[in-house]
Amino acid sequence: MTARPMSPNLALNQLVAERRALGDDILHLGFGESRLPAFDPLVEHLLAGARRNGYGAVQGDAAVREAVAGYFTRRRMPTGPDQVVVAPGSKPLLMALNLVLPGDVVIPRPAWNTYAPQAAIAGRHAVSVPIPAEAGGVPDPAALRATLHAERRAGRDPRTVILTLPDNPTGTLASPALIWEICAIAEQENLTVVSDEIYRDVVHDPTTPFLSPSEVIPHRTVVTSGLSKSLALGGWRIGVARFPGDEAGLALRDDVLSVASEVWSTLAGPMQQVAAYAFAEPPELRAHLAASARLHGAVARAVHEIFVAAGATCRPPTGAFYVYPDFEPLRPVLAAKGVTDSPSLARHLLDECDLVVLAGHLLGDDVHALRFKAATSMLYGDTPALQWQSLRAADPLALPHVARALARIGRGVERLVS
Amino acid sequence: MTARPMSPNLALNQLVAERRALGDDILHLGFGESRLPAFDPLVEHLLAGARRNGYGAVQGDAAVREAVAGYFTRRRMPTGPDQVVVAPGSKPLLMALNLVLPGDVVIPRPAWNTYAPQAAIAGRHAVSVPIPAEAGGVPDPAALRATLHAERRAGRDPRTVILTLPDNPTGTLASPALIWEICAIAEQENLTVVSDEIYRDVVHDPTTPFLSPSEVIPHRTVVTSGLSKSLALGGWRIGVARFPGDEAGLALRDDVLSVASEVWSTLAGPMQQVAAYAFAEPPELRAHLAASARLHGAVARAVHEIFVAAGATCRPPTGAFYVYPDFEPLRPVLAAKGVTDSPSLARHLLDECDLVVLAGHLLGDDVHALRFKAATSMLYGDTPALQWQSLRAADPLALPHVARALARIGRGVERLVS
Repeated sequence: MTARPMSPNLALNQLVAERRALGDDILHLGFGESRLPAFDPLVEHLLAGARRNGYGAVQGDAAVREAVAGYFTRRRMPTGPDQVVVAPGSKPLLMALNLVLPGDVVIPRPAWNTYAPQAAIAGRHAVSVPIPAEAGGVPDPAALRATLHAERRAGRDPRTVILTLPDNPTGTLASPALIWEICAIAEQENLTVVSDEIYRDVVHDPTTPFLSPSEVIPHRTVVTSGLSKSLALGGWRIGVARFPGDEAGLALRDDVLSVASEVWSTLAGPMQQVAAYAFAEPPELRAHLAASARLHGAVARAVHEIFVAAGATCRPPTGAFYVYPDFEPLRPVLAAKGVTDSPSLARHLLDECDLVVLAGHLLGDDVHALRFKAATSMLYGDTPALQWQSLRAADPLALPHVARALARIGRGVERLVS
Repeated sequence: MTARPMSPNLALNQLVAERRALGDDILHLGFGESRLPAFDPLVEHLLAGARRNGYGAVQGDAAVREAVAGYFTRRRMPTGPDQVVVAPGSKPLLMALNLVLPGDVVIPRPAWNTYAPQAAIAGRHAVSVPIPAEAGGVPDPAALRATLHAERRAGRDPRTVILTLPDNPTGTLASPALIWEICAIAEQENLTVVSDEIYRDVVHDPTTPFLSPSEVIPHRTVVTSGLSKSLALGGWRIGVARFPGDEAGLALRDDVLSVASEVWSTLAGPMQQVAAYAFAEPPELRAHLAASARLHGAVARAVHEIFVAAGATCRPPTGAFYVYPDFEPLRPVLAAKGVTDSPSLARHLLDECDLVVLAGHLLGDDVHALRFKAATSMLYGDTPALQWQSLRAADPLALPHVARALARIGRGVERLVS
């Protein structure tokens, strides 16, 4: 168990810091952080909870779990506080699920770069299934079925599938029809669904239909979420999980609580105060969430346009703050520059185009493909003042600092393909 | 992997809450929390860091690691910031060590109730070795050597030993002579030492000699610590680890960082601000730490006296805030009441004496023994005002609320043994 790699997005952060320290002027599109300031009422609640220095309940305080139950119930998932576990981020919850769920796990390809390493740390066999053309975050249904059968023939025991709704890295949202298909397979094939819905409140257009598998097959779906993305609170570490309310679901919850009690004890007290406020979603918070989602959408669409105009194919982004272009149509042009696969593409973008992206193979994608993830949430300005301006603008793309950042991407991509 | 138990001390908290909700007036000595208010400057630093909502470095920010390096260096462990990892508590760090260290692990008997479950979660074989008569927190040297050889003959591969200095649950501190012996064995037998020093700043008498194994065998010792105990910040979740500075030590650090990046990402930003202040140990903080240690010592010694006066044997407490009495001398008296082992003793104390303690078998001890852990840090008063009074009193035992709590223990123990 040596030479374990650092999570690649976090490793990339360090590379960027080093290059910048050397004087390089590079644009960082490799990290999935919503680069926005903390909303003032959230800070006020952190302050109000500052004196909560004693150990809190492992599961989360009653007030927090009540608020989280309301959050899910308002989203067509009737939830009692007993079905909720809060934690320092959704990562530890996903890890605990890996430690207690039986069998192997199916992961879409590409997917968030933490799913596969977590399975490996838990000693769990993972198998990846390509995403459909329509959207990421779910395995292609036909490929999923074929893989399940092939795995079983090979003596494997696939029992869990992870979905990401909306998706990181593709910035897309699987349609209700696709979710129905996946749920039908999960039901027939006896799979537990772990539905990572941390980007749920970052759907760009509020009229986009969202179907959670827990609406379809509630007895076999665990939903995880958190405040890191929608409220730009990655550095505060607040995550939640929703378990099925039946006996088996609550037994699974107890298994996760057992791991929680031995591995992280409790969400920090001041953060529980924040969570109780945020998951209750008072009007001012809803307005802030809506403004954030609008901004994420506008900038993601603009970046998407740049890549498509340069000749890449790319699913139009509808959620989260990512685009995932495919430069396959430009393979001959890139090959002439020595760019022939995912690592050389990302390296070339860094060295020659001053753009940092996360290479597709680091997300489990085919290393020979010419794909990468670009996080578009780093373009809102380098100071809280500029970020607030971006959030409040009717047309953020017209702001000079946003326009400049987009122009830099445009120049970098032009350099890549010309 | 079903029916995993909740960490027993945290489970006990819930039992106490339920019994109290039913109107029972019980004294909770079962939970290792320092029931003291947060020191004001710590709260101020939390507030100052409140706007740090972005993801911080996995390892911890440079300022925090610099402060922690100074903390260890002042304790005769020369440390560079590169040797330090900060995390949301020392529990996740200990878990990560379990996930990356090879081989089996040796745990003293009794020991803190999280070591064995963490090893089990990591799929690691654990073997327990009794503590010597002199002090807990370390295995008896002769028994350790015999166990290592027996394990190897049985095809096992013991490679790590966990020490607790000072010890939870016995409230004692292994002498330098004992540490030298254990370190010699670790060297001869090629063991990595994980030295849990979270109670280091809760040594009651500052002149008590403290020897860390990392002073003796620095290349094979990882030290963990945190602010939960010494500064009563269990609910803030701030932990640290110190790795050896050589190549192998930094490789182990990298393995832990890999797990960290996939499981918890980073210590929350506001908490990093707190840690940078606390580990720098300015004079006002040192005075607060010293006052806390004095209080913990005075009350632990008073509780020790009560148990010894009742006829139990008990190692005199010198660190942390626990006593670990053995009622073996009173076995005939207790047997007449149906108390014949560790579970029936704890149950009888709850049902008949209104005292909640943590039964010894839950700490890995012999289930037939008549031993338990009593946390003495819950006796300082139920309000911050009373707790401050306890902290500032020249003689906290003379304060009415402390004296009343001690008298209740006295009455409960009298009921047990009469």
